[in-house]
Amino acid sequence: MEAPSIHEANKHKKLGGRTMEIVRIGVTQPYDVLIGRGLLKEADKHLYPFVADKKVLIMTDDTIMKHGYLNQISEKLKTTAGAIHTISFQPGEEQKSMENVTRLVGHLADLNFSRQDVIIALGGGVIGDLAGFVASIYLRGIDFIQIPTTLLAAIDSSVGGKTAVDLPQGKNLVGAFYHPRLVLCDVDSFQTLEPHIFEDGCSELIKYGMIMNPRLLSELMDRTTPLQATDEELVEIVKECVEMKRKVVLEDEYDHGLRQLLNYGHTLGHAFEQCSQYQISHGRAVALGMSVFLQMADKINQLDDHYREQFDALLHQYHLLAEKYDYTAEELSKAMINDKKRRNSTITIVLPIAFGKCDLFQYPIDEFLSWFNEEWQKYEVYS
Amino acid sequence: MEAPSIHEANKHKKLGGRTMEIVRIGVTQPYDVLIGRGLLKEADKHLYPFVADKKVLIMTDDTIMKHGYLNQISEKLKTTAGAIHTISFQPGEEQKSMENVTRLVGHLADLNFSRQDVIIALGGGVIGDLAGFVASIYLRGIDFIQIPTTLLAAIDSSVGGKTAVDLPQGKNLVGAFYHPRLVLCDVDSFQTLEPHIFEDGCSELIKYGMIMNPRLLSELMDRTTPLQATDEELVEIVKECVEMKRKVVLEDEYDHGLRQLLNYGHTLGHAFEQCSQYQISHGRAVALGMSVFLQMADKINQLDDHYREQFDALLHQYHLLAEKYDYTAEELSKAMINDKKRRNSTITIVLPIAFGKCDLFQYPIDEFLSWFNEEWQKYEVYS
Ligand SMILES: NC(=O)c1ccc[n+]([C@@H]2O[C@H](COP(=O)([O-])OP(=O)(O)OC[C@H]3O[C@@H](n4cnc5c(N)ncnc54)[C@H](O)[C@@H]3O)[C@@H](O)[C@H]2O)c1
Ligand SMILES: NC(=O)c1ccc[n+]([C@@H]2O[C@H](COP(=O)([O-])OP(=O)(O)OC[C@H]3O[C@@H](n4cnc5c(N)ncnc54)[C@H](O)[C@@H]3O)[C@@H](O)[C@H]2O)c1
Ligand SMILES: [Zn+2]
Ligand SMILES: [Zn+2]
Repeated sequence: MEAPSIHEANKHKKLGGRTMEIVRIGVTQPYDVLIGRGLLKEADKHLYPFVADKKVLIMTDDTIMKHGYLNQISEKLKTTAGAIHTISFQPGEEQKSMENVTRLVGHLADLNFSRQDVIIALGGGVIGDLAGFVASIYLRGIDFIQIPTTLLAAIDSSVGGKTAVDLPQGKNLVGAFYHPRLVLCDVDSFQTLEPHIFEDGCSELIKYGMIMNPRLLSELMDRTTPLQATDEELVEIVKECVEMKRKVVLEDEYDHGLRQLLNYGHTLGHAFEQCSQYQISHGRAVALGMSVFLQMADKINQLDDHYREQFDALLHQYHLLAEKYDYTAEELSKAMINDKKRRNSTITIVLPIAFGKCDLFQYPIDEFLSWFNEEWQKYEVYS
Repeated sequence: MEAPSIHEANKHKKLGGRTMEIVRIGVTQPYDVLIGRGLLKEADKHLYPFVADKKVLIMTDDTIMKHGYLNQISEKLKTTAGAIHTISFQPGEEQKSMENVTRLVGHLADLNFSRQDVIIALGGGVIGDLAGFVASIYLRGIDFIQIPTTLLAAIDSSVGGKTAVDLPQGKNLVGAFYHPRLVLCDVDSFQTLEPHIFEDGCSELIKYGMIMNPRLLSELMDRTTPLQATDEELVEIVKECVEMKRKVVLEDEYDHGLRQLLNYGHTLGHAFEQCSQYQISHGRAVALGMSVFLQMADKINQLDDHYREQFDALLHQYHLLAEKYDYTAEELSKAMINDKKRRNSTITIVLPIAFGKCDLFQYPIDEFLSWFNEEWQKYEVYS
């Protein structure tokens, strides 16, 4: 049913003895997600159709630049692209701002970028979200390419077409649904990730297991050692996650239903992020959100007694529940009801209904909040 | 082929002896354009499905407010909407800015607008373009309704889904393709337009005649008196234009081909606007652009000798070629090649090929500019 991929011929192609996986995302303008090792070294080859003779703006952050990835890509594309411009931001969520959006569209206009030119997002979810949003609005949309360099970006943010920046009032409040033309994911780039950043990505990985993949969830629970950023298995795992994301996105591109499953742990997670002024990382905030909501789910769903313990043990293994935070139920509630997933007087939340399975539930806001209030007290005691 | 309209039952409904016309725009999420007299008086009825129990932000400008339209709509919706908020801007193109976008999304967040709430653009193309863009990016898109109060907005900007704001570097450089849920066009609101604003709208009306409607063009040329803002015929004329726009938009929603016909006169028109720092109105700038490009077209197309004279006479009738501007070909060229319709090394321009018919032409930029340079000297002598 999907249009043939221009990369199809290379599917599972051996690259110096290793495999490159290709997942095609069949939205209106379909695109490929290339996953493998050593892909940055051949960036020119993979990016050729999208950058040849075009102006290219590569956006990244200072840490990624420090590790040499920006140089590597620029060097590779130098003879292919018409012109290469680069811009680097300080790392951190606070870069996802309207100020940076305004600055970037002005920069593109100064560089005389036309509808035929292209933006490359080289980085984690922050750079991807910012670059993608800017690409979506400059001249009402120019091409962009995602080169995710964090596990989180690889398995979640670089695929599916959600882009956004934050407002002081809350996270991701301004954005667009806008897909890249290509996602190039070289898992070798995860080797330079600080462990806590890699672990943040594992939080979303665990989320996939929780919402729709009992097999993946068991596998993660059964591992004797935590996943490593250097594992060969990473290619497989990233591919599996991208395929899950594809499935969900294709069924609900504009986030009216099924796709909200991906928000498991996020309603409360975003509240933690906001209350901590983004000092708690996204991965840890979501982990805590998932843990609390699993406890809440116990109340309405008959979940296996050991589920919660096993799950929290898994989160602990990746140091995702390490700290204790003392936000009040009031603070958190306020942040939650400002969250965009709220309906006028009801709230949609994601709750586990079985091992590796979640569902959407709608509650009147008041009921949900009093319920949360109660559970949050209990949670503090338990944890 | 198009889905049935919720207003279908009312099609051509007599309203106090007058007719309401309905044009359905069959894009992915189809919407109706309601055109008639006295529609603002029944705004509650027409807007009901889109505003009932929702938070509504009505955006307008101070002139429109002064004429009482904002009060009228607010009053009408008061008992229907969940809450009504209003915001008014000074009139003028400079309101289409990133600063206002940032301010507005912050305002919506402060008001706790959710995905279910709605923005109403009450005004001309400036308010429509700004409100539409904000609606497209807040929470990745919330509903908006267009209530065009200028002829230009009614026949052109309120339909078709182009929204945008300007950058210091040029006009409409940032925006989105984003359709309203409804367009409510009460031609009675044109009665308070200053004549020169009404005439600006006539410039786009003449454009439709030029690009694709020989009959309309003849009719306009044959009239003994100029069109009046109070004419009953306005309903018919607006409807005819909206139908032309629909046709073009449905064939090329994202402006890759046919839709660029609507840019006749605009490549140069935008350059006039920019060079004058938006002191020349859009309508007059486009009129001048159409006149110059008609002269240019003479060179490659065998156009009837009288065509140009008849056409300029028509523009004069609406006071659209009244003034003389002494911008140099250099200034204008610079502004034109910054325009987003430029391809990397070629430019797409719209030129008349027959009476009431235009086509797209691509030229190498250098060739186009030297050609324009020559024609602009001639034009100054002629005019
Ligand atoms: N669009 C979506 O669908 C979606 C989904 C999930 C999350 N997100 C967003 O993603 C963001 C989080 O993404 P993230 O966790 O990737 O954050 P991030 O982009 O801030 O990256 C985390 C840190 O890792 C560093 N880094 C990145 N690549 C590196 C590498 N290869 N080696 C060493 N250091 C490297 C960065 O400098 C940064 O300090 C949040 O803003 C979140 O809202 C978006
Ligand atoms: N989105 C599109 O497809 C599209 C198409 C064409 C033009 N445009 C844009 O539209 C804008 C021009 O639109 P416009 O000509 O309507 O300009 P505008 O919105 O500035 O309105 C012109 C003037 O008329 C006044 N006005 C509006 N309604 C009135 C009423 N009923 N009575 C009295 N005064 C009234 C306004 O206060 C303003 O001073 C430009 O920014 C142009 O780029 C967009
Ligand atoms: Zn997440
Ligand atoms: Zn126009």
